[in-house]
Amino acid sequence: MNVLYEHGTLAMLMAKNLAGTITLKDLLKHGSCGLGTFEGLDGEVMILDNQVYQADSTGQVHHITDMTTTLPFASVHFPKDKQPVSLTKVDFDLLNKDFVAQHQLQNVFAALRLHGTLSDVLIRIAPKQKRPYPSLLEVAQGQPTFPRQNISGTIFGYYAPEAFGSITAAGWHLHFLSDDHQYEGHLLSFAAAQLMGDYEVFDQLDQHFPVNNKEFRQSDVDLASLREGIAQSEGHQN
Amino acid sequence: MNVLYEHGTLAMLMAKNLAGTITLKDLLKHGSCGLGTFEGLDGEVMILDNQVYQADSTGQVHHITDMTTTLPFASVHFPKDKQPVSLTKVDFDLLNKDFVAQHQLQNVFAALRLHGTLSDVLIRIAPKQKRPYPSLLEVAQGQPTFPRQNISGTIFGYYAPEAFGSITAAGWHLHFLSDDHQYEGHLLSFAAAQLMGDYEVFDQLDQHFPVNNKEFRQSDVDLASLREGIAQSEGHQN
Repeated sequence: MNVLYEHGTLAMLMAKNLAGTITLKDLLKHGSCGLGTFEGLDGEVMILDNQVYQADSTGQVHHITDMTTTLPFASVHFPKDKQPVSLTKVDFDLLNKDFVAQHQLQNVFAALRLHGTLSDVLIRIAPKQKRPYPSLLEVAQGQPTFPRQNISGTIFGYYAPEAFGSITAAGWHLHFLSDDHQYEGHLLSFAAAQLMGDYEVFDQLDQHFPVNNKEFRQSDVDLASLREGIAQSEGHQN
Repeated sequence: MNVLYEHGTLAMLMAKNLAGTITLKDLLKHGSCGLGTFEGLDGEVMILDNQVYQADSTGQVHHITDMTTTLPFASVHFPKDKQPVSLTKVDFDLLNKDFVAQHQLQNVFAALRLHGTLSDVLIRIAPKQKRPYPSLLEVAQGQPTFPRQNISGTIFGYYAPEAFGSITAAGWHLHFLSDDHQYEGHLLSFAAAQLMGDYEVFDQLDQHFPVNNKEFRQSDVDLASLREGIAQSEGHQN
């Protein structure tokens, strides 16, 4: 059985719960590949083959080896049932429409990993917040973006069904890491002539909650603004 | 770790996927207590201590022993970390407000089991549907209800956070089973002078999907009407 493990929810981040509630050590027990952010929404984390990379909001990428580092939100999995894919003229439009339709992903969670050269790419990197924490939406409104051209690397991330859009990013949530490990972030837009890789459909989402965290237990989620906020903060551009 | 296992989602039922996609045999591997419905939205299922009860829409309650019976949607768990509770002047209003606030359940999944005599109770029972299946909302608009007074039995079910309201019933989703096993259903309203029992907070929701079911994979969820539809079909009256 293919399982996606998620610690925390976007609803929590929208409710200003940005404290780290799981260590990298514990997170990696549930997956060798994944996405996330560090305490205080500190940057964009990408985990590939048990190696943890974090981009901070200056654009610098760090190879993280301190397993006591904590995260408020992360999704990981152990690759198990990878289906090969080879795509041409790839961008978000192709992934959102043709790819989802062809593989009937609209009602399931899935992972995607693609490698190749991007002719254009734009990423954003969340800046670290201090207490009292703002909501994810407030942070999203002032995030630095970093464009590149002709850069080789790996696109990795997850697809989530629309019905889960209050909990996680509905649709594709992808990060990009360059082959030289000098450029990484949350993917806003990209274009590539050809990319190769694999995808995997999950039978199950294991959604984990930091039930012993008092701030989380006491906080109130404003459901009315939740979806709009997540769309604004987690969206991509095309 | 306390885990709630859920097979299927209300979003699936709203999209007319009422085919049974898990057997009782497989479901009971994930819990000894739970709620659900059979293929075609056939009645209201309550599982207590590994015994499966199903009320059909005539109001009859059946003790189900055929483990090949299938369900499109069910939630189950193995009780593990039960916290005792004793409540007086109990109704949905008390559970929704005081109980949730006192135990800080608003952002977590929880189980509740209460026993005692209800002075008033109203349940509804979903009527079995045939193909082509309607949506959960259409079924909800014509469901028989059954009132009782002064009846002893067990209230059992789950609490889900608002942010999960597209997937499962947000707030309390409770069934009632009388001690004589002659009366059971989805709890719409009740009042009791005193009830005793226990509750349990879950660290994790294991959300399972019938990924090999073609109808599920191909169906479209109308997100705009989803929350309203679920509220109408899964709500209680006070």
